[in-house]
Amino acid sequence: MIIVMKVNSTAAEIGAVIARVQEAGAVPHPIYGVERTVVAVVGETRAVDPKTFVQMPGVEKITSISAPFKLASRESHPDDTVIRLNGVQIGGKELVVMAGPCSVESRSQLLETAHAVKEAGAHILRGGAFKPRSSPYSFQGMGLKGLEILAEARETYGLHIITEVMTPQAVPMVAEYADILQIGARNTQNYGLLHAVGRVQRPVMLKRGMMSSMEELLMSAEYILAGGNYRVILCERGIRTFEKYTRNTFDLNAVPLLKQLSHLPVIADPSHGTGRWDIVTAMARAGVAAGADGLMIEVHPNPAEALSDGPQSLKPRRFADLMRQIKRVAEAVDRSLSTVPDVAPEMVP
Amino acid sequence: MIIVMKVNSTAAEIGAVIARVQEAGAVPHPIYGVERTVVAVVGETRAVDPKTFVQMPGVEKITSISAPFKLASRESHPDDTVIRLNGVQIGGKELVVMAGPCSVESRSQLLETAHAVKEAGAHILRGGAFKPRSSPYSFQGMGLKGLEILAEARETYGLHIITEVMTPQAVPMVAEYADILQIGARNTQNYGLLHAVGRVQRPVMLKRGMMSSMEELLMSAEYILAGGNYRVILCERGIRTFEKYTRNTFDLNAVPLLKQLSHLPVIADPSHGTGRWDIVTAMARAGVAAGADGLMIEVHPNPAEALSDGPQSLKPRRFADLMRQIKRVAEAVDRSLSTVPDVAPEMVP
Amino acid sequence: MIIVMKVNSTAAEIGAVIARVQEAGAVPHPIYGVERTVVAVVGETRAVDPKTFVQMPGVEKITSISAPFKLASRESHPDDTVIRLNGVQIGGKELVVMAGPCSVESRSQLLETAHAVKEAGAHILRGGAFKPRSSPYSFQGMGLKGLEILAEARETYGLHIITEVMTPQAVPMVAEYADILQIGARNTQNYGLLHAVGRVQRPVMLKRGMMSSMEELLMSAEYILAGGNYRVILCERGIRTFEKYTRNTFDLNAVPLLKQLSHLPVIADPSHGTGRWDIVTAMARAGVAAGADGLMIEVHPNPAEALSDGPQSLKPRRFADLMRQIKRVAEAVDRSLSTVPDVAPEMVP
Amino acid sequence: MIIVMKVNSTAAEIGAVIARVQEAGAVPHPIYGVERTVVAVVGETRAVDPKTFVQMPGVEKITSISAPFKLASRESHPDDTVIRLNGVQIGGKELVVMAGPCSVESRSQLLETAHAVKEAGAHILRGGAFKPRSSPYSFQGMGLKGLEILAEARETYGLHIITEVMTPQAVPMVAEYADILQIGARNTQNYGLLHAVGRVQRPVMLKRGMMSSMEELLMSAEYILAGGNYRVILCERGIRTFEKYTRNTFDLNAVPLLKQLSHLPVIADPSHGTGRWDIVTAMARAGVAAGADGLMIEVHPNPAEALSDGPQSLKPRRFADLMRQIKRVAEAVDRSLSTVPDVAPEMVP
Repeated sequence: MIIVMKVNSTAAEIGAVIARVQEAGAVPHPIYGVERTVVAVVGETRAVDPKTFVQMPGVEKITSISAPFKLASRESHPDDTVIRLNGVQIGGKELVVMAGPCSVESRSQLLETAHAVKEAGAHILRGGAFKPRSSPYSFQGMGLKGLEILAEARETYGLHIITEVMTPQAVPMVAEYADILQIGARNTQNYGLLHAVGRVQRPVMLKRGMMSSMEELLMSAEYILAGGNYRVILCERGIRTFEKYTRNTFDLNAVPLLKQLSHLPVIADPSHGTGRWDIVTAMARAGVAAGADGLMIEVHPNPAEALSDGPQSLKPRRFADLMRQIKRVAEAVDRSLSTVPDVAPEMVP
Repeated sequence: MIIVMKVNSTAAEIGAVIARVQEAGAVPHPIYGVERTVVAVVGETRAVDPKTFVQMPGVEKITSISAPFKLASRESHPDDTVIRLNGVQIGGKELVVMAGPCSVESRSQLLETAHAVKEAGAHILRGGAFKPRSSPYSFQGMGLKGLEILAEARETYGLHIITEVMTPQAVPMVAEYADILQIGARNTQNYGLLHAVGRVQRPVMLKRGMMSSMEELLMSAEYILAGGNYRVILCERGIRTFEKYTRNTFDLNAVPLLKQLSHLPVIADPSHGTGRWDIVTAMARAGVAAGADGLMIEVHPNPAEALSDGPQSLKPRRFADLMRQIKRVAEAVDRSLSTVPDVAPEMVP
Repeated sequence: MIIVMKVNSTAAEIGAVIARVQEAGAVPHPIYGVERTVVAVVGETRAVDPKTFVQMPGVEKITSISAPFKLASRESHPDDTVIRLNGVQIGGKELVVMAGPCSVESRSQLLETAHAVKEAGAHILRGGAFKPRSSPYSFQGMGLKGLEILAEARETYGLHIITEVMTPQAVPMVAEYADILQIGARNTQNYGLLHAVGRVQRPVMLKRGMMSSMEELLMSAEYILAGGNYRVILCERGIRTFEKYTRNTFDLNAVPLLKQLSHLPVIADPSHGTGRWDIVTAMARAGVAAGADGLMIEVHPNPAEALSDGPQSLKPRRFADLMRQIKRVAEAVDRSLSTVPDVAPEMVP
Repeated sequence: MIIVMKVNSTAAEIGAVIARVQEAGAVPHPIYGVERTVVAVVGETRAVDPKTFVQMPGVEKITSISAPFKLASRESHPDDTVIRLNGVQIGGKELVVMAGPCSVESRSQLLETAHAVKEAGAHILRGGAFKPRSSPYSFQGMGLKGLEILAEARETYGLHIITEVMTPQAVPMVAEYADILQIGARNTQNYGLLHAVGRVQRPVMLKRGMMSSMEELLMSAEYILAGGNYRVILCERGIRTFEKYTRNTFDLNAVPLLKQLSHLPVIADPSHGTGRWDIVTAMARAGVAAGADGLMIEVHPNPAEALSDGPQSLKPRRFADLMRQIKRVAEAVDRSLSTVPDVAPEMVP
């Protein structure tokens, strides 16, 4: 931490800053320049809250020099985290593909989709039973019934399940049905929820909020890790910008950067990231080329009738084509698609 | 809703669109242009989900023509909503001022602040007992103990209390202590929480998320209204943009616009909106001039030692000066500050 | 400037950084912390380009501690700059109002508007003769003919003229007709143009680009000041954000902040800032309350037929009402509207 | 164009709208709904300016249904535009790579870089002789001397030259030396400059502004095309968002979308797009996978000493590695790198 003093700060003001740094148990290093003085703070700086200096007389500003996330940082954990499910690994050399509809809408819709994505080579089935919707009048998901349908698809097709959990209360119930808990983009900074998923034994996929910086995403991951759950997957799904031709601005730069800053696996979601099915395949290829550890893709047997997110869903035939294309790109970057296990995964209790 | 067909769409494609509109119970109006055809949808359009048309063959895009919020809209409720607490009204001709520290840090800190803001003419005491923080290692608030301190300040100084609630589970507890429940900017689209506060008998102040559009803010208000709680207050507190000299971009345009779109009271929060104490007073004046129904201002007896948000907090002396300044601006726009009742407010059970 | 070294940087790497700082003529101050080392750079730092350090081995990042603008800064010029035209001052205690149509469309349209805004108390007539339009097929302005019409209005009504100049070549011609040259928001970083207006003897109003930070705006002002033209006026006119209910997000925070950072006058333009006539008056009041030195307002005798910017233009009757309202707000913040001189202004050659 | 009337608009108001549509030579189609009326405008709509309707009594809003760009649109020109230079094509199946330093800093720096990028397989040499810089005190480029050095590199290494032109006056001079004129991101909407390059016989690469929407980029391309210069190349180079870990947010979604909306070639510039050399290679791979027709990459023999943009420049060795990597990705998407001609290109007069 560096405390920059004003051009005309007095010796007494500088002395007061130095004294407060010492009180906080850290070591102040004043540097007297021609124009102004700065005080560098070293040693046990974690207890020193920069904000307590901001309004001291003579202080101009504070600049930080360390990343605020620790457990999530690559520095603290140089090797990649690999999350193991039965028969599938997330974060290793092989890529995983999560696919399925935005929402579970009916038994037949989900089973048909599960069948199709399994055939095409997907590893994990997505499908929302609880849906965050900006309007209270929109379809809010099938709830428990949706979870039961997901469980049936799991049994039938041997696919792992990822599904969203929206409230702390629902965490235990959803964790009974899901192999991976998903935290949606509107809940990236829902700290009550992050606390709750930090205490369960299920991997968690944390989506970047449409308003979250990469640093905030990593800080939110830190909440889950600090709670004791080390199996966290990061997911880039688009941020909000001024551009209106895409629903969000799918920020693929986050893929190589998060991999560099953190040891956690990174999944790219071009369906939400772009909001347009007609560029999903191109951006899925780009995600793999950028170094993502896997993809999340929305697939619907009949996008035109989807109750949510139809405009960004692929038909099964297009999804199979996407799988063929990303297989080639994966090889071009010395990776491969994970194989699909033949048998039904067993859920770890 | 207007369904715009592609330039080369066929009669069969247009026919299919028309048929689906009819199935949904609405009335299709095809308009055959020189270059392309559009289908206007009228009648019972609420059951017609635009998304179901997007991927139909021949469809180019859908444009909506109605605001998606109903109960929150000015059209549905032409008169201003006025929320009555004991001795204070929010949303009428008189302005209310909510002031206090970001966080309740100690009994003495809160009581000292409460005394100061009451003296200066504030009507409602703010103070966080539960604090959303981006780092799990930062101070998270005093919790229940903080609520008890707020209750004591309430008794002692006759100030109403506004404080944040962060999880659905905590709603009943916080509602026991608070006259107004605050939903923070990170929870504007936390639907589980919106549902929960929609079912209690306490006014709710809903802050605009840092990346919520005005429309999304009104949709989130709609969740609370649709839950049966009609006492909702909107609060502009800054949005996230590229500008870095201010912590957020305090979007005062939302004040006159929300007043026009909705009947709900609108509060301006220049402390969070700007993140800089040195422009809070100027922007508080601007908020009143723009037509806000009140202000929320952070005040701390010693901002340099605040555990959170010190850089944007005013000292009591500066706050008193702010109150004098906004009084004059209020009069210049034909409004006035609400008087401060002498007696302790009685909490409605 | 502070050079932050990596956690595991070597003594040799630190030595190389120190040596390069010395080569550049500045004084390095290494501070050896428990976890990492930082090198503070003081003395003649202006010659030290931070970028030359970024890729040196062992360097993590560079943080700057001084504002990059000098001539525009309040520190370099503590008193307010006041720009004197015949009979009107910009930047003093009295506020000026610039009003008129977006574009000069015809002699009668301009003269009618000039008459109306003069009657209502405006001091300076705005009107574009050269118009930047996003489409090559839109009306591009009347050009020289427009300038001649402005000159006639100037003579007839005794109003000063402000009008936009778009290319370096056109600067001498426009400077013959205009009392103030306007640099539009798309040209805030058009350096060829900034150079050109830095060499003429006319005040320049520099609009903040929709993508310009306040710092960039001040840097662009620095270009004009460094060219030798000290009569620069800053103008806030809205930035681009994700919010779509307003055409731009009128960033009034810039008003008190620019006044604090710089000695130059600051004008607020709520017409472009919001893009909606129905909130222009409210935001004009807010601009005055925030501390602006004046306003720029679009007025059109018949907004529904305006060739550009109709949606944000006020009718003369509404403009007169705006003038009455801001007069009251100005007094509430201890300022007043400038009086309107009776005689035609004489142009300084 | 669809004119949406207010809920309570009167028959007279609707009649006036219909009459004005007719006056403008287009055909009005009123649709009378249960709740409100809309007027669809068909026929010769190009002469109908939507803005003239906005303030008519009873009108709520206008929605547009056609893209505003014509010559740039894929609809107007279904086949890809391929731009032919001697020995290299831009926009065909083969990819081109433009590489070189941000600025020409010296003869030796440029020739060394030219040699290195030629060796590695680049086709076109970039290097700025005129540099737009936010500070008037920063290095502004070598000017004409820089152009002469570029010309020498062209002769010596047989590379085509791309370099930026910043003012209309400089267009003829720069066009004498450059095979491709570059319009920089700050000048995307500098219409004087767009006019000037629309009248020369040189291909133009138009960079997307950091706050230009894709639509605005295409409208700016339209200016050049409408001027008679059909050889326009689009370039995605990052937009400005709230994210601060990258200098800009490199918006790769623009690549497949611009290819879909327009027939013009699209180049991706990950160097400016990200501002970080450490993710340039990953994002270059992603750009190719997304469908770009080529890349622009900053290469500097010694980035740590670059006078501009050092942090995003690759060393020649890393650039050679990038070329090897993108070759593999290109093949995975059924494309290939263009071969490098052996002989010096001849400039078309």
